[in-house]
Amino acid sequence: MKHTEAMQEALIEAQKAFDSNEVPVGCVILKEGKIIARAHNQKEHYQQACSHAEILAIKKANEEVNDWRLNDCTLVVTLEPCMMCAGAIQQARISHVVFGLSDEKFGAYGGCFDSNLIKGFNHYPYITSGILSEKSQHLLQSFFQIKRKK
Amino acid sequence: MKHTEAMQEALIEAQKAFDSNEVPVGCVILKEGKIIARAHNQKEHYQQACSHAEILAIKKANEEVNDWRLNDCTLVVTLEPCMMCAGAIQQARISHVVFGLSDEKFGAYGGCFDSNLIKGFNHYPYITSGILSEKSQHLLQSFFQIKRKK
Repeated sequence: MKHTEAMQEALIEAQKAFDSNEVPVGCVILKEGKIIARAHNQKEHYQQACSHAEILAIKKANEEVNDWRLNDCTLVVTLEPCMMCAGAIQQARISHVVFGLSDEKFGAYGGCFDSNLIKGFNHYPYITSGILSEKSQHLLQSFFQIKRKK
Repeated sequence: MKHTEAMQEALIEAQKAFDSNEVPVGCVILKEGKIIARAHNQKEHYQQACSHAEILAIKKANEEVNDWRLNDCTLVVTLEPCMMCAGAIQQARISHVVFGLSDEKFGAYGGCFDSNLIKGFNHYPYITSGILSEKSQHLLQSFFQIKRKK
């Protein structure tokens, strides 16, 4: 599965978040080119600070392979991961992260700061950014426009 | 409850991890001076990369107060939080973090790097460190000595 195809699937997840009145972020995790986990942000639904799309997808992927290690997996997410999610990606040793829109406020791969520049870690994922970012941006802008009108 | 008393409770949690063959780290979360959540590292047990003591304790605390915000809470943990856990503390807006032993390898509050020095975040917890650190160190050293002998 190509990055753009996988991102389309992550965008389907982001739309689910949008439809449930959650900040629209979606994520899929690939192993050997196939999706093994998919999730969307459900922080408000669960009232759980850690229920970002990436954390929920990593949980499902760990269940799927019955291993906390996801070395050979690619995580595809519509918005640049925050510090918590970059840390989870590091903990799970995910080899490749593909994200859509950069996040100047919270992004941990160059948006707000770059966790891959912190020295001494035992693992650094390879990063690909900007995949279908305009679609992610459109969803997020629509969401916050509606929020402001309420 | 004083910091040392709360850390004693976190150490009881760390001992549970030790007894289950997990890296011995324990955590409690206080609200208005009372423990509302407690957890220990269960990464191997669940085969979940995110099942650090702090993440599991934050999940329980969110459930307890039925709110993802833990603004008025103190998180007490035997080992300096890693990047993922520091990110989760930020996401939950926990006001105060008390930790025991510093972690040069992964610590996100000065051990490996200092997440509180990253500019632009919307929340920075107040940090107290070094509380009963020798007890945490003893548990961790014993754990890794046994591991090396195996």
